[in-house]
Amino acid sequence: MTGLLWLNGVVLPVSEARISPTDRGLLLGDGLFETMRVVEGHVPLLERHLVRLEAGCETLLLPPPDHALIRQGVDDLLTASGLVDGSVRLTVTRGSGPRGLLPPVEVRPMIMLTCAAATGAIAGPVRLGVSRYVRDGRSPLSRVKSLNYLPMVMARMEAVAAGYDDALLLDGQGHLAEASAANILLMLSGRVVTPPLEDGALPGTSRARLLEAGLCVEHSVPLADMGEVKAAWLVSALSLQPVASVGAYVLGRCKDQETALRETLFGVATQ
Amino acid sequence: MTGLLWLNGVVLPVSEARISPTDRGLLLGDGLFETMRVVEGHVPLLERHLVRLEAGCETLLLPPPDHALIRQGVDDLLTASGLVDGSVRLTVTRGSGPRGLLPPVEVRPMIMLTCAAATGAIAGPVRLGVSRYVRDGRSPLSRVKSLNYLPMVMARMEAVAAGYDDALLLDGQGHLAEASAANILLMLSGRVVTPPLEDGALPGTSRARLLEAGLCVEHSVPLADMGEVKAAWLVSALSLQPVASVGAYVLGRCKDQETALRETLFGVATQ
Repeated sequence: MTGLLWLNGVVLPVSEARISPTDRGLLLGDGLFETMRVVEGHVPLLERHLVRLEAGCETLLLPPPDHALIRQGVDDLLTASGLVDGSVRLTVTRGSGPRGLLPPVEVRPMIMLTCAAATGAIAGPVRLGVSRYVRDGRSPLSRVKSLNYLPMVMARMEAVAAGYDDALLLDGQGHLAEASAANILLMLSGRVVTPPLEDGALPGTSRARLLEAGLCVEHSVPLADMGEVKAAWLVSALSLQPVASVGAYVLGRCKDQETALRETLFGVATQ
Repeated sequence: MTGLLWLNGVVLPVSEARISPTDRGLLLGDGLFETMRVVEGHVPLLERHLVRLEAGCETLLLPPPDHALIRQGVDDLLTASGLVDGSVRLTVTRGSGPRGLLPPVEVRPMIMLTCAAATGAIAGPVRLGVSRYVRDGRSPLSRVKSLNYLPMVMARMEAVAAGYDDALLLDGQGHLAEASAANILLMLSGRVVTPPLEDGALPGTSRARLLEAGLCVEHSVPLADMGEVKAAWLVSALSLQPVASVGAYVLGRCKDQETALRETLFGVATQ
């Protein structure tokens, strides 16, 4: 993270920004977030992220933030911090509330933007461990990027502790769902497939762009079918990473497919 | 909430307390909490709550807070705020961290105590609506009281919007699990039963006390069996409330059982 953030309309140092101890995001995980790519000082896919956030707000019965406000906030933060390449995270909570689960009559959301520089490192192929944490594709909350990220945190921590780079989560029926912070793409029967939302995949923005471009299709993949998978990638708003292995299944590389996916998402220059 | 809290060792006004915008509790729901009953200026079951919190910390791979520190914090907060009857909430997060899911090498937990006066109101029988949100009793996180409380928040909000007082959540197989912030007890076949942890019940402290006292037993209850239930109660660390109805199932009262449960949990004086 850089030393500056934007909080409810104001750019200020992270060290001076104050989140209330009564914020429902902190107390109950009652909120949403978006992680967005910054390219040459701009967030090219801001509108797409805001549309997804709005869908999440609908599920949470939360008034969505004003697009113009967020757009201005992103501009102000990137200008003030001088960030050229990296990421911006937008966090929206239901704001402060009294004790208990029900929100106050008048909700005043907390809206925050933080940013971080790109590390410049190009990650190599990742080894995935199959997690004991399960994605429930039937839950309305599996479709939104909420602050309830603890299953993903624990899946990642346990995977790293077991010697893997990241965790692969399945749904309750043993179908692939997604990694801890990325969707998964698989080269299977000569085409690129990605698990459907019903199997617990979050509707990621890069995933959506590839589906729209016709570069992948939704398809359920039982873990037992991994033996037929030629290659796989993790894809998020920030990166496309080849997968080296899933548990004991060792995968190959499909460089042509990878180049096509990467060009569509990030352009040639960004590798 | 009263105007004071205790944050990492210091009692100060809520309005002056600052939670960091990089706290993982806020950003990822990476933490736990306990809500504890205050009686005559003390928390009689503090040790029981701390033991449950420790079990949660084990699941989260988080160093548990020192008992003596928390005990002193509760004393300091209750003395400073003059609170006699009400509740104290203990919140523990994994503290601040860099961008991403993995915690920093050196974790410095954020530990917070807030308190609220008892309202004095004795709640009448509650009408429960069956929620579309589902409890997954197979998840290790269903056994811990984590900050990932959004399914419960949404279940409660949707239930209230539909005209109910609270939500009843089922597991994936249609068995009763619990309400949005309380365990459920049911009068069934002449005894008091409560859903097992495998069905998605949180191991509540009052639930544990009743099991230990032999006043209830664990038993799976399919929603379809509600027609055989004579009476039901919601039970938490703070209260025991009779249930008037579950969806279309209207329940009776079993006053003798209710008195026995209430006396065991809260003593005669507290109703």
